[in-house]
Amino acid sequence: MRHFTSVNDIPDLKKALETAFDVKSNPSAYAHLGKGKTMVLIFFNSSLRTRLSTQKAAMNLGMNTMVLNINEDSWQLETELGVVMDGNKPEHLREAVPVIGAYCDIIGVRSFARFESREDDYGEKILSQFTDYAGVPIVSMEAAIRHPLQSFADLMTIEELKTREKPRVVLTWAPHPRALPQAVPNSFLEWMRKAGYDLVVTHPEGYELAPQFMEGLTVEYDQDKAFEGADFIYAKNWASYTHYGQILSHDRSWTVDSRKMERTDNARFMHCLPVRRNMIVTDEVIDSPASVVIREAANREWAAMAVLKMILEDNQ
Amino acid sequence: MRHFTSVNDIPDLKKALETAFDVKSNPSAYAHLGKGKTMVLIFFNSSLRTRLSTQKAAMNLGMNTMVLNINEDSWQLETELGVVMDGNKPEHLREAVPVIGAYCDIIGVRSFARFESREDDYGEKILSQFTDYAGVPIVSMEAAIRHPLQSFADLMTIEELKTREKPRVVLTWAPHPRALPQAVPNSFLEWMRKAGYDLVVTHPEGYELAPQFMEGLTVEYDQDKAFEGADFIYAKNWASYTHYGQILSHDRSWTVDSRKMERTDNARFMHCLPVRRNMIVTDEVIDSPASVVIREAANREWAAMAVLKMILEDNQ
Amino acid sequence: MRHFTSVNDIPDLKKALETAFDVKSNPSAYAHLGKGKTMVLIFFNSSLRTRLSTQKAAMNLGMNTMVLNINEDSWQLETELGVVMDGNKPEHLREAVPVIGAYCDIIGVRSFARFESREDDYGEKILSQFTDYAGVPIVSMEAAIRHPLQSFADLMTIEELKTREKPRVVLTWAPHPRALPQAVPNSFLEWMRKAGYDLVVTHPEGYELAPQFMEGLTVEYDQDKAFEGADFIYAKNWASYTHYGQILSHDRSWTVDSRKMERTDNARFMHCLPVRRNMIVTDEVIDSPASVVIREAANREWAAMAVLKMILEDNQ
Repeated sequence: MRHFTSVNDIPDLKKALETAFDVKSNPSAYAHLGKGKTMVLIFFNSSLRTRLSTQKAAMNLGMNTMVLNINEDSWQLETELGVVMDGNKPEHLREAVPVIGAYCDIIGVRSFARFESREDDYGEKILSQFTDYAGVPIVSMEAAIRHPLQSFADLMTIEELKTREKPRVVLTWAPHPRALPQAVPNSFLEWMRKAGYDLVVTHPEGYELAPQFMEGLTVEYDQDKAFEGADFIYAKNWASYTHYGQILSHDRSWTVDSRKMERTDNARFMHCLPVRRNMIVTDEVIDSPASVVIREAANREWAAMAVLKMILEDNQ
Repeated sequence: MRHFTSVNDIPDLKKALETAFDVKSNPSAYAHLGKGKTMVLIFFNSSLRTRLSTQKAAMNLGMNTMVLNINEDSWQLETELGVVMDGNKPEHLREAVPVIGAYCDIIGVRSFARFESREDDYGEKILSQFTDYAGVPIVSMEAAIRHPLQSFADLMTIEELKTREKPRVVLTWAPHPRALPQAVPNSFLEWMRKAGYDLVVTHPEGYELAPQFMEGLTVEYDQDKAFEGADFIYAKNWASYTHYGQILSHDRSWTVDSRKMERTDNARFMHCLPVRRNMIVTDEVIDSPASVVIREAANREWAAMAVLKMILEDNQ
Repeated sequence: MRHFTSVNDIPDLKKALETAFDVKSNPSAYAHLGKGKTMVLIFFNSSLRTRLSTQKAAMNLGMNTMVLNINEDSWQLETELGVVMDGNKPEHLREAVPVIGAYCDIIGVRSFARFESREDDYGEKILSQFTDYAGVPIVSMEAAIRHPLQSFADLMTIEELKTREKPRVVLTWAPHPRALPQAVPNSFLEWMRKAGYDLVVTHPEGYELAPQFMEGLTVEYDQDKAFEGADFIYAKNWASYTHYGQILSHDRSWTVDSRKMERTDNARFMHCLPVRRNMIVTDEVIDSPASVVIREAANREWAAMAVLKMILEDNQ
């Protein structure tokens, strides 16, 4: 594996999962693998779990880490080619990326969808400049349309807790006051499909995800029906893809509550966090034993560690 | 010792002081104690000394460190239970705290008094969510009503410099343009009382500290009288406790100057820093040999190292 | 070498260059030199290359590092002596500097010219408080009037690529939308002069650099003439020294383009970055094989590592 930007970068998903469970069982067993190597973590957007879990994973492997917040530590970066740079962005990604690459062995980068242009976001304009110009492996810490480290941890969590070979996994939209990217649901569907689970997607009309991520799936617009027989409920808000970046519904009847969870087959409740309590999910559900959100977040460390381990081993 | 949030968490203060002086004399002697362990330092508020001295202390013990500024690196955290989270705070402490705890062995947290509600501040609403939910030891890097790492360093400094068994230690209020928390004076009184010193408190009327911290003490409202025979002058501003969070006086006659220092018994001048020159204390006094503010600040490293050493030893 | 604030701190420039090329060839050979030592990197201003390359250099030498952004991590610092600190700056450099020095073995500091007073900037008011009060070696990571780590990397780059003993090196002004400090051109001239190169300086009238940096040089106001026979074109914007801090020209005819590069003797194009494309230099030139800006930036790591190695060896 050279870069890690989607599940498609992983040559063997089963083996990757084994690696993740191995590093979870033996967190200090590979402390010499990254000795003398450095990872730079670049954030165009805020982060809590991803920042800490990825940095921790790198340190578990003996790597040195440097964290850079674009805008706060540094300055804004121009991303458009061919422009006369007379505005408020003093540096171009075209210089910044290879320079950062010169100082490290792996770059982690977080750059959310900007909702300015669907074409730009779905073309992964920022991330692709990193993979093109850095000269070192790139790990996506959530890009415009995918969040593969999150999905890897989600997969680990389901594998740990599933009670049947192919569990019924339901992705449900839920309300939120702000327009959120589609990276988490897109990525989730890719990984779950590859894992061969029984996948159900439910959301209000107008919230259809991009066709390439919905391949082979049909939407169940009735949330109650979708929840029937579910083993895992994965809640998430996202803004519209068709009316790109817009909020079409604030419908609180989509909030996951106890009544809805009762329709499931004792499903576990999942969410990538941060989660808006009593918008996405009620206090009652997230504070119940069915909620596995903390385990999911804790698995972020092991998913990141597995990814970094695979990259270190393949790029020596 | 599980958590370190006040002097009351220390089972044996004399032994803790011995530990602090031992690590000061042998800073590299315990570099393997924290090997493979990680400390996360979380700042809800700005920091210079605490940030650097605590991180340094953790590194002295061989720990990995990760620093997180809430608001700048991450996002605002909701602290109220039961709310519908449709405002500007995308995550609740109830999730953030156990997640952070999942990635580390010790959490250091700084969260000042907010002056919105005395009940909330004096209930240590934020800090207590950390000790309740983190699953790992918590070290207060200044909470709403106490700053025990500062007081520990203050105690070290007095022990190093005192010329009699029970020195006369004077806590004096001094003017400041902003409303400051009571954490430093509260904590100072707790530690000094436990050390058995001869304690004097002086401030203008209206600045009485909370009764639980004044136990056994009476206020000397005449600053001149208070300074008589003092071995140590500890200056600090704080906002009113009774008129909670208000500034009742800008009286510059309370500024510590040379004339006042002359009333003492060759007292040393102490302050936790940052200090407003020519508000809290004149240039003349702080630049004089009587000032021990840099030594006090330097001792922060050893106080923090002693605390972390005790926690590492007790939580293996 | 005690401090590193200009080329004048280096006792033997030839030997320093040898050290830089040695650490570049053997980056992991000195990983034990800084073991148990700590470097604090303090930023009053934003940074990308300097931040990452200096931190990386310190880690290459086995040092622990702590990064502090003044204003974001901490608070604003007062720099004037004798003032009543009743404004928005809660701490004075006079306390902050020795305190930081107490927690580390080397301090790196970045503090740009403020353009409020030429006398203050050219007196290096901030940097000199660090060298005076820190008690540990200071490394300038760009101060008001010099950027010696940049110049050291520039020198390395020219030494690596020069095709004659004394190459013709041209420093050319180029347009920029904001007022920029003179630190890079000042420093560049000092280092190039010491290296004994054939130096040419070209800029519009009014952009004359401070006399002490122009010693022995005369300005060629005709950029075309200046470029003739050049081996290296070093482009940089700076604000006026005589009309201190002012922008006197936005003349885009000074932008370095292919036509101008053709007048040179196959010169390499250099810039310290960040660079405004199509202001300082056209896309065509910076994307051509003549551009060595990434190599220059990569050499920052080795220049910083050489400096830190020399300081560690001389201050044991």
